Amino acid sequence: MAKTNNNYFNYKNKNNQKPKEQKMKKLSKFKVIPLGGLGEVGKNMTLVEYEGDIIAVDCGIGFPDDSMPGVDLVIPDITYLEENAGKMRGYVITHGHEDHIGALPYVLRMVNAPVYGTLLSLGIVESKLEEHGLVSSCSLNQVNAGDKITLGKFTVEFIHVNHSIADACALAITTEAGTLLFSGDFKIDLTPIQGEPMDLARFGELGKEGVLCMFMESTNAERPGYTKSEMTVGKSLREIFMTNTDKRIVIATFSSNVHRVQQIIDYSHKCGRKVVLSGRSMVTIINAAVKYGYMAIPEGTIIDVSEARRYKPEEITIVTTGSQGEPMSALTRMAFAEHTNITLGKDDLVVLSASTIPGNEKDVTKITNEILKKGVTLLNDEVADVHVSGHACAEELKLLLHLVKPKYFVPLHGEYRHLSKNVSHAVDMGIPHENTMIAEIGQVIEVGEDVFRSIEKVQSGKVLIDGLGVGDVGSVVLRDRRHLAEDGIIVVVATVDADTMNLISGPDIVSRGFVYVKESEELMEGLRKKAEEVLERCLWDGMTEYNLIKGKVKDVLTNYIYSITKRKPMILPIIMDI
Amino acid sequence: MAKTNNNYFNYKNKNNQKPKEQKMKKLSKFKVIPLGGLGEVGKNMTLVEYEGDIIAVDCGIGFPDDSMPGVDLVIPDITYLEENAGKMRGYVITHGHEDHIGALPYVLRMVNAPVYGTLLSLGIVESKLEEHGLVSSCSLNQVNAGDKITLGKFTVEFIHVNHSIADACALAITTEAGTLLFSGDFKIDLTPIQGEPMDLARFGELGKEGVLCMFMESTNAERPGYTKSEMTVGKSLREIFMTNTDKRIVIATFSSNVHRVQQIIDYSHKCGRKVVLSGRSMVTIINAAVKYGYMAIPEGTIIDVSEARRYKPEEITIVTTGSQGEPMSALTRMAFAEHTNITLGKDDLVVLSASTIPGNEKDVTKITNEILKKGVTLLNDEVADVHVSGHACAEELKLLLHLVKPKYFVPLHGEYRHLSKNVSHAVDMGIPHENTMIAEIGQVIEVGEDVFRSIEKVQSGKVLIDGLGVGDVGSVVLRDRRHLAEDGIIVVVATVDADTMNLISGPDIVSRGFVYVKESEELMEGLRKKAEEVLERCLWDGMTEYNLIKGKVKDVLTNYIYSITKRKPMILPIIMDI
Repeated sequence: MAKTNNNYFNYKNKNNQKPKEQKMKKLSKFKVIPLGGLGEVGKNMTLVEYEGDIIAVDCGIGFPDDSMPGVDLVIPDITYLEENAGKMRGYVITHGHEDHIGALPYVLRMVNAPVYGTLLSLGIVESKLEEHGLVSSCSLNQVNAGDKITLGKFTVEFIHVNHSIADACALAITTEAGTLLFSGDFKIDLTPIQGEPMDLARFGELGKEGVLCMFMESTNAERPGYTKSEMTVGKSLREIFMTNTDKRIVIATFSSNVHRVQQIIDYSHKCGRKVVLSGRSMVTIINAAVKYGYMAIPEGTIIDVSEARRYKPEEITIVTTGSQGEPMSALTRMAFAEHTNITLGKDDLVVLSASTIPGNEKDVTKITNEILKKGVTLLNDEVADVHVSGHACAEELKLLLHLVKPKYFVPLHGEYRHLSKNVSHAVDMGIPHENTMIAEIGQVIEVGEDVFRSIEKVQSGKVLIDGLGVGDVGSVVLRDRRHLAEDGIIVVVATVDADTMNLISGPDIVSRGFVYVKESEELMEGLRKKAEEVLERCLWDGMTEYNLIKGKVKDVLTNYIYSITKRKPMILPIIMDI
Repeated sequence: MAKTNNNYFNYKNKNNQKPKEQKMKKLSKFKVIPLGGLGEVGKNMTLVEYEGDIIAVDCGIGFPDDSMPGVDLVIPDITYLEENAGKMRGYVITHGHEDHIGALPYVLRMVNAPVYGTLLSLGIVESKLEEHGLVSSCSLNQVNAGDKITLGKFTVEFIHVNHSIADACALAITTEAGTLLFSGDFKIDLTPIQGEPMDLARFGELGKEGVLCMFMESTNAERPGYTKSEMTVGKSLREIFMTNTDKRIVIATFSSNVHRVQQIIDYSHKCGRKVVLSGRSMVTIINAAVKYGYMAIPEGTIIDVSEARRYKPEEITIVTTGSQGEPMSALTRMAFAEHTNITLGKDDLVVLSASTIPGNEKDVTKITNEILKKGVTLLNDEVADVHVSGHACAEELKLLLHLVKPKYFVPLHGEYRHLSKNVSHAVDMGIPHENTMIAEIGQVIEVGEDVFRSIEKVQSGKVLIDGLGVGDVGSVVLRDRRHLAEDGIIVVVATVDADTMNLISGPDIVSRGFVYVKESEELMEGLRKKAEEVLERCLWDGMTEYNLIKGKVKDVLTNYIYSITKRKPMILPIIMDI
């Protein structure tokens, strides 16, 4: 691929043409601080700071990995923002997906500031805030694609992009020091189902005006070519409705893809089918989409799931959540015959209109097996065009780089492998390698006309949400949970007379998750004797410090158990005294 | 696809031509009992029983899934075989992969019988038995592809197939009642690197003679077309060696793919490179392969890892395990800069010559990120032909069905989705649907000239290996481990005077994996007070049955904690008495 530095020089020339007065003034620098979404998937949030003003681009959640058992959600550590809360001018939201807005109910409680976003994004944010009882205390402010708003010293322009949710925007953030462009999640869909293709002309204009730094998503950076249009799915769905006139059609998809759900409803209506919406998030989001005019549903098309049995299979379409095999989802309940109103069988066609998100393969295989066992016909994206990605592939990323011609480039959203590939696209498009940066979360990137560097690190990381607890589960608790999961726990309890230091009761041994006790009596009795022996020895030796005695018991039992079983359960000695 | 029943009628006609005497005799039926490999991946083992004789086809391990924390391996439940140990005539092995031989060290201890397999398979079995100190007590018997052996009333013929390990065989198991054909794992490689293509002519002959039932692997049944030849990888590797003359080349692959390792060594030798073998299983298996003549290594080519630093990067090739990102593997240690002798950097080219096994995606992404961060150039099977599967795709499965023309068909090795797809291939090839069966483990399949049905179920399932324990971790222990992992444990200990039933010490509260105690003192103190309150109340009410008191404490604390935290840690009350 031919490398050219033309873009780079273009940029320089343009800036040289600025009026002299402006050139004379010593401009401040931007500080850009990603708090999530780098070296990880999800939890997207980036702070932009300029002369004492801060805005936050997005505020998303991440999902726990295998090393975080019991954790429900992960949100960004916003300590830096809390410490600088006085500078905060607002949250600007690119689109309404969980990984971009899901942390708002937690973060707004810590740093309350106005939220700006398009109608659908705010609709989804509002329903989340309602769940947390926060609506009245938060300020949600609607903008439209094309709008510019002023927040402190920033002007933020919302620019229409295509994505797998309606109303997604890129953000051009401008101060007198220049323009930063955040692509948000995007794809270039020239034939979207509703609305316009991404506003490429505006990106081109911005490029001509001069963009200091582009922050671009990297999700599909490793995939060559172009992402297919949502229209492909439309054609495929039409084919499915036309050729399955004798079957009930069950389609599992992401609830936030309202355009796809709209298509399904339209085809159903044309074929004289009623539509059942199944799954809580499906109902919530579709209701919001209808309320705000993003969907138009023909009168009488939607029926309640309880009415479904009054219709013949070929008169019904079911649109459901659960395309990732989520254990509690509606589709999983259908697959395992645990759904109150829907029983799958030979008269059903199930369409998984989604791709399997990495990490969910096993859950998806589980429901696939169960669905096939019921004699159901199953279509997924491996055998039919029933899903397309919402993210730009390599050629689209390069096209945007070509239009925007940024001076500096920072890839966002992805593991290192994705970020690294995105940088290589930028270099292919003529951006000098030294003008690109693979950043880490917490890193403060200083950006100005002649400055592009990492200057310091601020506190950042993961705050874990477990039940109602925010941040009370940390590395120690997780380490214990993993240890407990691995080999279980053995509790050793003894009561000691504090005056005479004599063992007066126990030691008793109680275990959980170690062995099936009823079939391991010998082992458990051996353990008890060993524990008694150590305790007696410690007390005989005149040890009075309980922590030392407990440490001794722990060491001896750990070695004893390992020698017999090659396992290392957690040993928890407890000494009571009277 | 045109469906034809010709094959089926062919078979019938052939059998009608048998001499009359044979037709008169009332023949017994086969009983075929899969003990693993159905509705799951791995743990392959199938019993074949005929007139009081039993043989076992393969004896493999499976790997634990997320629901089995702490479990190392899974082996088949062989209760039925133990109960019928007197009938056991031998284990016949198709090839030396873990999922086909790994359970032998455990199973042979329970039911000892001669093992039959080809040289390389037995070499690998032998090294496993050595680790378990079992070599002297077991009988390993070498056969060659093409050999027929007699075990009780069975004749077992070993037929050469291609696979990702050398010396793999299909098995034709014959009694006077007919022939059962087990494909084993196979692919049709017309241009293998070493040895011959699969013995298709022999499969054709068997088809003409008449095969009663074929048991065929299903791993790649969902993939259309043909699996590429190992030669593709050879060409790609040659290209890599020719174009990277300035780099050290690090290739991660499966140690058992000795032909691929041979190619790597050959190219290295041609380019004047020394080869380092890294990873325990790599060294073990390559040594066995050399010992038994499956590999030829030019004198002086292999050097020890400690000598590597004496050579320039371009003079070294490293062949290593760890292509699945296994946390303890050599490649992972290199990626995380924890390897004693090998430090990765800009002078390295790392080739992942393997595909990612479902479930390992996250681990592979982790090492990919780390490798890229070091400035290493990385090639994987997404960007270069550096790996091909060892399993037959749809067209190969159909080709084998065409040659063998079995009367009955049972797919083996796979989740339901794979088995189901394999049946649809068989039906496409003209086998009537009622002559196919998607079986489950433990199901006894009766097979005879005019019989093909499931007659009963025998005990079957998973026996879990944890450390030295075989089967002592069951569903109760796993449930506890999952519970402990989810929200941790709270131990409540109190000492009671057994005579007066007065609380004389405690209750003390100790938790692990619940919250970070130092920052949750209020919650812990609340818990202690609540526990004290319940205990006092119980004792005041005159309760003397400790189990009832403990139950009460558990219930009250569970509700109390849930109301505050929305979590459900395990509550373990312990009452000591004196």
